[in-house]
Amino acid sequence: MAIPDLDTVRSFFARAPFVFDVGMQVEAVGDGGITTSIAIERRHLQHSGQVHAGVMATMADHTSGAAAQMMAAEGELILTAEMKLSLLRAAKGERLVCRAKVLKPGRRVLFVEADVWCRAADGSEQHVARFSATMAVVPMPAA
Amino acid sequence: MAIPDLDTVRSFFARAPFVFDVGMQVEAVGDGGITTSIAIERRHLQHSGQVHAGVMATMADHTSGAAAQMMAAEGELILTAEMKLSLLRAAKGERLVCRAKVLKPGRRVLFVEADVWCRAADGSEQHVARFSATMAVVPMPAA
Amino acid sequence: MAIPDLDTVRSFFARAPFVFDVGMQVEAVGDGGITTSIAIERRHLQHSGQVHAGVMATMADHTSGAAAQMMAAEGELILTAEMKLSLLRAAKGERLVCRAKVLKPGRRVLFVEADVWCRAADGSEQHVARFSATMAVVPMPAA
Amino acid sequence: MAIPDLDTVRSFFARAPFVFDVGMQVEAVGDGGITTSIAIERRHLQHSGQVHAGVMATMADHTSGAAAQMMAAEGELILTAEMKLSLLRAAKGERLVCRAKVLKPGRRVLFVEADVWCRAADGSEQHVARFSATMAVVPMPAA
Repeated sequence: MAIPDLDTVRSFFARAPFVFDVGMQVEAVGDGGITTSIAIERRHLQHSGQVHAGVMATMADHTSGAAAQMMAAEGELILTAEMKLSLLRAAKGERLVCRAKVLKPGRRVLFVEADVWCRAADGSEQHVARFSATMAVVPMPAA
Repeated sequence: MAIPDLDTVRSFFARAPFVFDVGMQVEAVGDGGITTSIAIERRHLQHSGQVHAGVMATMADHTSGAAAQMMAAEGELILTAEMKLSLLRAAKGERLVCRAKVLKPGRRVLFVEADVWCRAADGSEQHVARFSATMAVVPMPAA
Repeated sequence: MAIPDLDTVRSFFARAPFVFDVGMQVEAVGDGGITTSIAIERRHLQHSGQVHAGVMATMADHTSGAAAQMMAAEGELILTAEMKLSLLRAAKGERLVCRAKVLKPGRRVLFVEADVWCRAADGSEQHVARFSATMAVVPMPAA
Repeated sequence: MAIPDLDTVRSFFARAPFVFDVGMQVEAVGDGGITTSIAIERRHLQHSGQVHAGVMATMADHTSGAAAQMMAAEGELILTAEMKLSLLRAAKGERLVCRAKVLKPGRRVLFVEADVWCRAADGSEQHVARFSATMAVVPMPAA
């Protein structure tokens, strides 16, 4: 498996309308992992002023799925079977950063993990969410 | 605890910017549960044409949280500690419908569940996702 | 797929040493589900006097796995990929009863659920745990 | 909070009958984490010859709960609200080793994680399971 370059991963993200709509960007690719970020806007918030858990679930799922897809063989499609998100702290700040990687590859099922940090205006970061998911490997449907 | 009316729950949803941004609507309130829906648009989709798991995670988390908040005492705030979402089938159709309820109330921790169905153009519905979450009960911060 | 009879399921359980060691018994089989029970003894307890969560995890996992194996085709083996157990109440009583079923079958991945109740000396039952798992379908290894 | 010594943690484990019954031993305490082990016997197995997931769920839950209890204030009791266990590989070998730590402490809810490795006769180790749990902090009941 060749590690895809940043442009390949960016074009993969660009094809998912919800990911574009939420404002997710690919920051880095390598070492079996992917890093993404979102510039936090008012539209991402809960009534309490913190980032909605749904934004972080979207970010962690998509970043993990892309990390798994990077490791897949030609003709294999990765689908999320289940995900768990633990919300460690309220996410208040300027930018969310997500780092995802494959914990255990597999031919039929694989396991991924991701972490979400929230970067404040002063540059400090807090670990705000921890994510794990089980993904299924299925044959890519004919185009 | 008085069961809140539909308008009270709708105004609760209207205060969460991400929920408004995603297009979630409150359909019904009662019997310890809440029903919401989203008219599926192109912007909600994955690259594969199905609804992004993040849309369903957002919907299930917010609908469950509102069902739990309905049962909370005055001055108590409900926060999601963790959530699990199982993706049973690809969600392709016209409208997502989510029904959430409190599985087990509690003074410090409570358990909620939700299901998401996808309604097709012909009116048929498929069960597309199952959700469970653990929520913490904390004192409402002073306004 | 023929629904197996109670004796077939009992012999399936009898081949798993830990299940025998814990004292799990098959009570009923049918309608896509399996019911098992454990007579609670002192050795099953936590330091606090309630049943250890590990007993309930064992029971829910094995009962669910058996319910899924019942639906599998010849030559297919069901393996648990991940499980979640929510502990709703302290389990104190005379007998644990677990009911498991397949929520969604599948050719590569399937979803199961189970509930655990605790029966007291006076015959009353409390819902003590809720379980969900993702299972993988793999080819049975050659004997 | 003083870090308890190994004997204190061992006496905590010795008070839980199921943990004694399963054969769990405390190996090390420190740095916010606890390490335990189980010498694998035939009674711990599944029908397939690998260690039953219930053994690993028991081990990870109890080791994590003890790591959390170590950080609790006087008069606080830690209870597992929910746990997730991902089964990465079949566990076949001589000894299970579990390392647990608190991911995020909290006054009402805390998050723990654990990993289980399986040590073979040749001394090699494989990462067989990953565990995360949400725990509730409640007042210790009066003795």
